[in-house]
Amino acid sequence: MHQTTPQITNIVELLNVNDSAAVAALFASAHPADIADALEQLTPANRPLAWVHVPIAVKGEVLTELSEGVFKNLAHELDNRELVNAIKALDIDELADLIPDLPEALLADVLFEVDTKTRANLGEVLSYPEDSAGGLMNLDTTAVRDNISLDVVLHYLRLKSELPEHTDTIYLVDRQNRLSGILPVDRLITKPGQDSALAHAIETPVTFQCLDDEEDVAKAFADYNLISAPVVDQNNALLGRITIDDVVDVIRDQAEHDIMAAAGLKEDEDIFAPVAKTSRNRTVWLAVNLVTALLGSWVIGLFEGSIQQIVALAVLMPIVASMGGNAGTQTLTVVIRGMSVGTISRGNMLTVLKKETMVGVLNGLIWAIVIAFVSTLWFEDIFLGLVIAAAMIANLVMGAIAGVCIPIFLDKMKIDPALAGGVALTTVTDVVGYFSVLGLATVLLL
Amino acid sequence: MHQTTPQITNIVELLNVNDSAAVAALFASAHPADIADALEQLTPANRPLAWVHVPIAVKGEVLTELSEGVFKNLAHELDNRELVNAIKALDIDELADLIPDLPEALLADVLFEVDTKTRANLGEVLSYPEDSAGGLMNLDTTAVRDNISLDVVLHYLRLKSELPEHTDTIYLVDRQNRLSGILPVDRLITKPGQDSALAHAIETPVTFQCLDDEEDVAKAFADYNLISAPVVDQNNALLGRITIDDVVDVIRDQAEHDIMAAAGLKEDEDIFAPVAKTSRNRTVWLAVNLVTALLGSWVIGLFEGSIQQIVALAVLMPIVASMGGNAGTQTLTVVIRGMSVGTISRGNMLTVLKKETMVGVLNGLIWAIVIAFVSTLWFEDIFLGLVIAAAMIANLVMGAIAGVCIPIFLDKMKIDPALAGGVALTTVTDVVGYFSVLGLATVLLL
Repeated sequence: MHQTTPQITNIVELLNVNDSAAVAALFASAHPADIADALEQLTPANRPLAWVHVPIAVKGEVLTELSEGVFKNLAHELDNRELVNAIKALDIDELADLIPDLPEALLADVLFEVDTKTRANLGEVLSYPEDSAGGLMNLDTTAVRDNISLDVVLHYLRLKSELPEHTDTIYLVDRQNRLSGILPVDRLITKPGQDSALAHAIETPVTFQCLDDEEDVAKAFADYNLISAPVVDQNNALLGRITIDDVVDVIRDQAEHDIMAAAGLKEDEDIFAPVAKTSRNRTVWLAVNLVTALLGSWVIGLFEGSIQQIVALAVLMPIVASMGGNAGTQTLTVVIRGMSVGTISRGNMLTVLKKETMVGVLNGLIWAIVIAFVSTLWFEDIFLGLVIAAAMIANLVMGAIAGVCIPIFLDKMKIDPALAGGVALTTVTDVVGYFSVLGLATVLLL
Repeated sequence: MHQTTPQITNIVELLNVNDSAAVAALFASAHPADIADALEQLTPANRPLAWVHVPIAVKGEVLTELSEGVFKNLAHELDNRELVNAIKALDIDELADLIPDLPEALLADVLFEVDTKTRANLGEVLSYPEDSAGGLMNLDTTAVRDNISLDVVLHYLRLKSELPEHTDTIYLVDRQNRLSGILPVDRLITKPGQDSALAHAIETPVTFQCLDDEEDVAKAFADYNLISAPVVDQNNALLGRITIDDVVDVIRDQAEHDIMAAAGLKEDEDIFAPVAKTSRNRTVWLAVNLVTALLGSWVIGLFEGSIQQIVALAVLMPIVASMGGNAGTQTLTVVIRGMSVGTISRGNMLTVLKKETMVGVLNGLIWAIVIAFVSTLWFEDIFLGLVIAAAMIANLVMGAIAGVCIPIFLDKMKIDPALAGGVALTTVTDVVGYFSVLGLATVLLL
């Protein structure tokens, strides 16, 4: 590539030796996204030092490229006046993205500084939920009346002398601003100029309503290979458009969210945040985990007498719990993904449950044989081996069933399965694992 | 949206009552991506039944939209002749995507059927690794000589009467086909026609080399908001171009991979694959897990005598292991994400290690106090409480250190941290958790 991220090692070194000129030179030729990357890699203390060397012209854009956590950190550290100047020059959709993360005082200043039209537009975009098509849209549509020829469209565009970024289509609207067609720019160029614009409009246009969910928007962009698509109201009047660059951000954020949520983390976690802040962020998750772990321990506690008589149970029970947890997590992961990409729906849930249960039975049998063999050899007690084997089957089947049912249940309760699914599942497999090993042993061996 | 996925419940029902006409009608008006979605939701037995109703004109495209697992399943079930006909009409880049998944016999047939030029082009694209810029590129560039005016460019494009999909830029090349500039189509339309094309080329063009990694390509597309970008060789000669729709697939596949890998699953897992196949796919992961669980049990086994004397140890030790695993997984997740998005690099690894260790110490202290309190009340033994507390601190600190070091180490060994990181970490925290509880108790309480 012609452009590369300014090297973080260099920047830290340059900051250390106070070589401002060199840092400024690095930043002067860098893309705003690369400057943002460099800032992300610095400690909170170093970020304001580096920030002063960011060229004024791109400061606003650099802010929009920062992750939420780092933006908040920097917004806290910097001079308000300067931030307002950087922010007020941004496009509507970028402004709308930043606003939810702005400290209140700063927000008031920004709204005071922007012109009346921007403020009105901003009001419109912000009136939609952040994760809806309306919240995602820009207002920079290029629209022409639908009864003109391609030549006239071309002439009109020439008069504008510039088009908004990512304008791959021109919208054709009627007198009431209702969308009557979408004209791809490449057809505008290649088709005979005297043809009517409407004659070359896209045959199966994809449009979105303001309240469409951003994940549905992202799926549609990916499925139909879109670069941009119009947002319309109930009367089909053109409101704005969504462009692929914002959709790519949605897709990346969603992936980030799923991965971070599985460990109880927020997607905007700043790696270099202060220790106390990070520790506090992670406390809730560890508290939940402690409660579930205590539940498992309580089950073990019920069988203290049995353990005292057969200590081997204490040695072997974590294996059963762990195997159930792992097998269950595989099912859980497949089901959560299937639900989120739409492969699993009401129509085939029972098929999935049946299949995963059968996989649990089969895997249970396989690993029961292995663990029976290992346990019998280790503790020279075939009955102990059989008890552990039976518990293994029970827990792997339970893991499979829980792996299917937990995400379905959480989804019904409007709880994010990516966040709570794993904890719920391992709680089930721990409890069932301990209970089946110790319970069976108490009944059969003592 | 104007277009919606054909309803799976309907399709299953319609297949059941043998209402072919209705299925055909549903598919006739659907987008290939939506038909592919519908097929993904069917059981392997139902897919060929539905396939016969897919309109012939879109069969090839539907195949390209299927996930790898479902494609392989369907390719296995269908008539070769028909598949070859559907596949041979595809674009080079789509063909190149399918080829690695084709059964060998089918591959030979397809290569035999396509024309000589396609075969040569295909050879070129396939000569690059699948996950490189070269493997991602299309050959459908629109290039013009760099010494002409915008009007001449427009005239030339009019002669073509059609442009490849996602043509947002025209490439300007010299006599040796070396890229001298990238002209955005919107400037071509809006700028004065007599201007030279080169005068309106992009100021900071982004280009890729054939062997650039696809993840770097995806990051560049996201950072610089690209729709398409050229791929050049070492001499800057134009080879092809990469378009955003393929990059979106890379981003989605990568996210899918990370989430599935964490549970030891392949990203192309077919939810409705036969039970035996699914069970076999998951066996390796469960085998690895069994070995790590046995390691933990071996540690417990070292202290059988201690457990027999203080059964409470068997009750409490899973809590310490579990809390260490959870806290460590949080660190691990943050570090893996940081490494993959580039926030963590050689320059700041030590900062991350120091910070996470401090978080481990702080969290360790907090939860040590809580667990000391709980254990003391539960078993009415303050010394037992203190031992568990000390073990908790040790294991949370260990979890933090392992969470930073394991992904760094795996990355150095060229092992995917998303795949192996979690298992490695919980093995460490289980072993250290059991060892610290039982070891400390043996030394201090017996």
